[in-house]
Amino acid sequence: MPTPSRETAERLDRTDPLAAMRTRFSLPEGVVYLDGNSLGALSVGVPAAVRTAIVENWGQHLINVWTDDGWWDVPLRVGDRVGHLLGARAGQTVVGDSTSVHLFNVLTAAARLRPDRRLLLVEEGGFPTNHYLAASVARILGLEVRRIPMPDMASTLRRLGERVAVVTAGAVDYRTGELWDVRAVTAAAHDVGAVAVWDLCHAVGALQLTLDADGVDFAVGCSYKFLSGGPGAPGFVYAARRHHGGIDQPLCGWHGHAEPFAMVPDYEPTTGIGRLRVGSPNILSMLALDAALDVFDDVEMAAVREKNLALGDFFIEAADAHLAGCGFELVTPRRGDRRGSQVTLRHPEAEKIMRALNQHGIIGDVRPPSLLRFGFNSLYISYTDIFTVVEALRSCT
Amino acid sequence: MPTPSRETAERLDRTDPLAAMRTRFSLPEGVVYLDGNSLGALSVGVPAAVRTAIVENWGQHLINVWTDDGWWDVPLRVGDRVGHLLGARAGQTVVGDSTSVHLFNVLTAAARLRPDRRLLLVEEGGFPTNHYLAASVARILGLEVRRIPMPDMASTLRRLGERVAVVTAGAVDYRTGELWDVRAVTAAAHDVGAVAVWDLCHAVGALQLTLDADGVDFAVGCSYKFLSGGPGAPGFVYAARRHHGGIDQPLCGWHGHAEPFAMVPDYEPTTGIGRLRVGSPNILSMLALDAALDVFDDVEMAAVREKNLALGDFFIEAADAHLAGCGFELVTPRRGDRRGSQVTLRHPEAEKIMRALNQHGIIGDVRPPSLLRFGFNSLYISYTDIFTVVEALRSCT
Repeated sequence: MPTPSRETAERLDRTDPLAAMRTRFSLPEGVVYLDGNSLGALSVGVPAAVRTAIVENWGQHLINVWTDDGWWDVPLRVGDRVGHLLGARAGQTVVGDSTSVHLFNVLTAAARLRPDRRLLLVEEGGFPTNHYLAASVARILGLEVRRIPMPDMASTLRRLGERVAVVTAGAVDYRTGELWDVRAVTAAAHDVGAVAVWDLCHAVGALQLTLDADGVDFAVGCSYKFLSGGPGAPGFVYAARRHHGGIDQPLCGWHGHAEPFAMVPDYEPTTGIGRLRVGSPNILSMLALDAALDVFDDVEMAAVREKNLALGDFFIEAADAHLAGCGFELVTPRRGDRRGSQVTLRHPEAEKIMRALNQHGIIGDVRPPSLLRFGFNSLYISYTDIFTVVEALRSCT
Repeated sequence: MPTPSRETAERLDRTDPLAAMRTRFSLPEGVVYLDGNSLGALSVGVPAAVRTAIVENWGQHLINVWTDDGWWDVPLRVGDRVGHLLGARAGQTVVGDSTSVHLFNVLTAAARLRPDRRLLLVEEGGFPTNHYLAASVARILGLEVRRIPMPDMASTLRRLGERVAVVTAGAVDYRTGELWDVRAVTAAAHDVGAVAVWDLCHAVGALQLTLDADGVDFAVGCSYKFLSGGPGAPGFVYAARRHHGGIDQPLCGWHGHAEPFAMVPDYEPTTGIGRLRVGSPNILSMLALDAALDVFDDVEMAAVREKNLALGDFFIEAADAHLAGCGFELVTPRRGDRRGSQVTLRHPEAEKIMRALNQHGIIGDVRPPSLLRFGFNSLYISYTDIFTVVEALRSCT
C-alpha cells in the first residue's frame, strides 16, 4: 500500500462509481462537509418539492390536500421509503414526530409486551435523550434501568435472563462511530425472551440495514443525518409486523385510530403500523424528506456502504501516514465491520483544532472535551475531501 | 335590522377595517374558504421564507444554522410570538412537536403536581385525541377519568372538590363552535386546588385569549388552523411561569436539558419553558409558521375577534332570513360571548349538501353524520363570502 497522497485520492475519485451523486446536492463552494452525520446536506430536488407542496398543494387545494393529494397517507408512504433502507418490508415503518417521541412510545410499548419483567437495559454511553427517556419509561412502568457497556450487552442478557424486559441501544455509537452487532444483540435478547429496540439515527442511510432478517423488534431514528431530510426532519419508527397486534403505546392519537373520522371518544387502534401515528404530521418537513429520499432510488445501499467504508479506511491510512506525532488518537475501530460511517479522533485541543479546520472550509464537529467527529456521506464526500481534511489536521497541530 | 342581503354584505365589506388583510393570503380564484378552522390558508410570505430557510440557511450554512442562524432558539422565539396571541408574557410558550404530544406531556406533568388526587376530568364531547390521551395518562398514573359535559364542569369541580387532580377541556367545542369560559372553569379548578389544562386549537388566532390574566396553568394547541401555519404545522405548549420549577414531564429530551451539549446521561431540565422541548424541532414547518405569524403583527386580536363575531352574526341572521324551512338547525350558540369563530348547522343531509357547496367553490367541512361546519378567519373572509354561502345553502336544499 503506497502512502496515501492527494494523487491516490484523485485516482480513487476517478473510479468512484458514486462520484456523480455529488451533483445531486447543493453544497456551498469551497466547503468540505464532514458533518452530514449531524445534519445532512441539501438535495437539489428539495426546494422545488417543498415549493410545490406549499404553493400548489396547500395554497390551491387547501383542506383537500389531505385527501386529493394523498397527504393523509404521507407518513406511511414515506415510511415505506425509509423502511426500504432499513431492510424492512412495506407496512412496518412510519415517519413523523421526532426520534425521542417514537423512542418513548416504543420503549413503553416494548416493556408492556413483557409485563412480568423488571429490567430495562440501556447502552452505557448511548445518546443522552435515550437515557432520559429510558429513565422516564422505567419510572412510569416501575422498571429498573441498568446501563450496560455494549461489548458486555450480549453476555449481560444471558446472565440476567428472564428478568430483562427490554434492551435498547444505538446501532452506531454517536461519539466513537463504533458499530454494534444488531443481529447478535437482538438474538441474545430473544434468547432470554426480551424485546430489542434499536436507535438507528447514525445508521440509516449509511449502513446496509437488514431489520427484518435480523429479527429486530422495534427501531427508531431520525432522517436529518445520512438521509439528508433537513433540519429537524421527521423521525421514523419501525415495528416488526409480528408485534403490530400487540402494540400498546402511550401516545395514542386520532391519526392512529381505526376510524379516525368517526371521532369516537374511545381509542381503538388501526391495524398495522399506522397505530404508531399520533397527531397531525408535519407535512412540509415530511415532503422535504420525501424529495431527499429520491437520491436513494438511484443507488444501492451496498455501494453506499462500500464507499463509506473505503472513505473511512482512506482516512485512517492517511492519518496513520501523515498525523503521526501530532497528538491524535484514533477512537473509531480500525476494522470496517466494527465501524459506522464516521471516524472520530481524540485530541486534547479538539475545539481549537476544529475552529482551525473551519478556517479551511472544513466542517466536522466536536463532542467535548476531546473528540473530533468526521462523518462520511458516500453520496457527496470524495477521497480528495478526506485527504484535504487530513492535510489540514496536520497543519492545525 | 334589514333582511341581510348581498348589498348589506358588500356595504359591510366596504367598511371592514380588516378587508385589506385578504391580500396577504394566496387564495385560489373562485373559492370561498370556510375551512380555515381546519387548515388555514397560505400566507403570501410563506413560500419565500421557507425557500430562504432551505436554500440559503440549510443549504449554505449546513450544521451551523443551529448556531449562526439562531435556529436552536426558534422553538422559543416563535413560541413567544404565539404566546403573544395567547395573552402570555414571554418565556411561557414553546412550539414544536404536535398538540397530542404536548397534551400527553402536560397532562402527565399537571397530574404529577397533585400526586394525592385521583380524578382527571375531561370535557365530554371534546376532541377524540384528548380522550385517548387522558385515558393513557390516567392508566399510567393510576387516575380515574370522568367525562363531564362542559356546562356542568364548574359545578362538578365544586362537588368533587379535592379529589380532582386535573381538568382538561377545549376552549371552543370543535364541532359546535361553542365557546367555554376559560377563566371561570380555571377559577373553579383552582378553588378546589386542581390544575387546568386547556386545548386552544380552535381558539388561538381567533379569540382574544388572556391566559396569564385568567390564571391558566397549562395550554396546548396547534398552529395550522387560525394561525395558518401550514399542514401539520407545529403544536405549542404554554405553561404558567409559576409552574416552571415543578414541571416533571415524561417526554424529556436533550433539547430541554440544562446543558444540552454536555451530553450527560442524567436528565436535568433547563429552567423555564425550555424544559418542554424534547428532540430536534421540525424547523422547516416551524419557519413556515414563523412567516405566517407576520400577518398578526399588523392586526389587533380585538379587531380580529370583533370581525369574526360580526361574520358569525351576519351568517346567523342571513340563515334566519333565507334558510327558514330548509331543514337546518343552528347548533352554535347565538350569543357572541358563547361562540368561537365558527358556525355549525345540523342537517340530516349534511354530506350531500357539502358536496353541492363544493360545486359552488365553497369549502367547509362535515362532522358526520349531520354537522356542517363553517369557520371564519377574519383575515381573509368577507361578509360577501358569508352571503354567498347562505345563498348556496338555500339552493342546495
